[in-house]
Amino acid sequence: MTLYALDLFGTAVFAISGVLLACRSNMDFFGALVLAFVTAVGGGTIRDALLGSTPVFWIQNTHYLWVILAAVIVGLATLSWMVRIHRILQIFDAMGLAVFSIAGAQKALAFGAEPVVAIIMGVLTGAGGGAIRDMLAGQVPMVLRQEELYATPAIFGCLFYLLLLSWSVNPTLATVIAGILIFSTRMISVIRKIALPRIALPG
Amino acid sequence: MTLYALDLFGTAVFAISGVLLACRSNMDFFGALVLAFVTAVGGGTIRDALLGSTPVFWIQNTHYLWVILAAVIVGLATLSWMVRIHRILQIFDAMGLAVFSIAGAQKALAFGAEPVVAIIMGVLTGAGGGAIRDMLAGQVPMVLRQEELYATPAIFGCLFYLLLLSWSVNPTLATVIAGILIFSTRMISVIRKIALPRIALPG
Amino acid sequence: MTLYALDLFGTAVFAISGVLLACRSNMDFFGALVLAFVTAVGGGTIRDALLGSTPVFWIQNTHYLWVILAAVIVGLATLSWMVRIHRILQIFDAMGLAVFSIAGAQKALAFGAEPVVAIIMGVLTGAGGGAIRDMLAGQVPMVLRQEELYATPAIFGCLFYLLLLSWSVNPTLATVIAGILIFSTRMISVIRKIALPRIALPG
Repeated sequence: MTLYALDLFGTAVFAISGVLLACRSNMDFFGALVLAFVTAVGGGTIRDALLGSTPVFWIQNTHYLWVILAAVIVGLATLSWMVRIHRILQIFDAMGLAVFSIAGAQKALAFGAEPVVAIIMGVLTGAGGGAIRDMLAGQVPMVLRQEELYATPAIFGCLFYLLLLSWSVNPTLATVIAGILIFSTRMISVIRKIALPRIALPG
Repeated sequence: MTLYALDLFGTAVFAISGVLLACRSNMDFFGALVLAFVTAVGGGTIRDALLGSTPVFWIQNTHYLWVILAAVIVGLATLSWMVRIHRILQIFDAMGLAVFSIAGAQKALAFGAEPVVAIIMGVLTGAGGGAIRDMLAGQVPMVLRQEELYATPAIFGCLFYLLLLSWSVNPTLATVIAGILIFSTRMISVIRKIALPRIALPG
Repeated sequence: MTLYALDLFGTAVFAISGVLLACRSNMDFFGALVLAFVTAVGGGTIRDALLGSTPVFWIQNTHYLWVILAAVIVGLATLSWMVRIHRILQIFDAMGLAVFSIAGAQKALAFGAEPVVAIIMGVLTGAGGGAIRDMLAGQVPMVLRQEELYATPAIFGCLFYLLLLSWSVNPTLATVIAGILIFSTRMISVIRKIALPRIALPG
């Protein structure tokens, strides 16, 4: 129940990040709607298609779609305010990343996938939508150019989640611990500007 | 029967728009084939994958593929003529948009999807192929930069189609009316250069 | 058995081509991992999703994922050497193209697809991963800009494979012959710089 509420919350936050990029890319209302939609459900949609969980989740539960529509309308109506609260949105986005990543790993496990697949599905669910958003706007996905850590917290968070489960930790507790790990690692990297080193060719 | 003929017609027209972009992007014959293919079947393919209607439609009915191959050959053989009849192709493209959008919404309904999903699937089927075409050619999808209305007619056409069905209008009649609505709205926006307003940051 | 070994070999080679592009695109370790992953399994993943063969192959057999991880680690550790043996990697890449294309066509046939679909699935499996890799790095897919033949050998190789099968040639022998045809055509075009002519507008 709480996880579902967090999932819808993450959907709204991711949708608003799509609206903001549509605005920066000089798009119109439809562009904002599309970018909000792909950011919010893109990762989970690919996950479901690869797992064979079709019709994909937002076809089976359309609440996600109404949350996105509401987020687009609210986002556009308060656009100048949304731009000003950029730092707060980063906090929300980190929450979305945490919730989506764990939820993605859980869904993969529910389909009988191996741990390594669950981690991939977690990262895909958490970071895939934003990658499609960036590509639609003509940019190399932020998650691949990462000035800060984005996918890395999701990878280690999902890995830690699987470890906790293998140690027979209560699943709800494991979700909370791994989620806090992802959220806090992401926020620390944003604040301290921590990034992975670039690949460089040895001289 | 007539709808199927229109569907194949839309396939050919969309394929030719792929050939024209391949030409403008300085690609070779294979590039033309790929861009024609993704423009013609890309939207419907994603729709089928998300609905779980697999193998996707052109694997089950390969007529679409032969129509695309024929369209590429005819398109390349008459390339200088195709470029000259640009305005006529826009009329055909508007027909393709109308047919594909309604057909996409119908397929979603046949899979038991809710109305809001049917609208998304309609727009995806009508405009998704062109979006993939543009991304493969290294451009931000035209449908997101829209100088004219493209997706908006599809959205309202599919919405109107669903309203007509809910009012117990004969399905064939509803298809014709909604199709004409999409086609005419699209053409009016092309002729009058009507577009949605850009999102702008307030002062 | 041998084909499976070749398949894993192709996976490793394609993964390394992803690492090299991530390096040229100034990405970090995660970027290298993602580009290696999509190059190695991207084409086969789309093939499986379109055929309805879900969960897709690397979810069912995670050996592919461990091969990719190993290839990324080895590739990054020997990066300056990998760049120097560029020509050798092209030979490996041509092997990967040959193996993946035939394997893709075979899988489509096993799902009862018609010959034309088998050819499309062959080309998609062989060249699709590289196309996604290029798009993620912000480039028009190499296979569409082809300075040399890449997809064309795959098309004709798959076509010839189907012809051999229709002539009741032993499937293993047909695989070997068609694979050698793809490999050698690709290598000749690399060495001789043979490409398809660009589409040009007449006068």
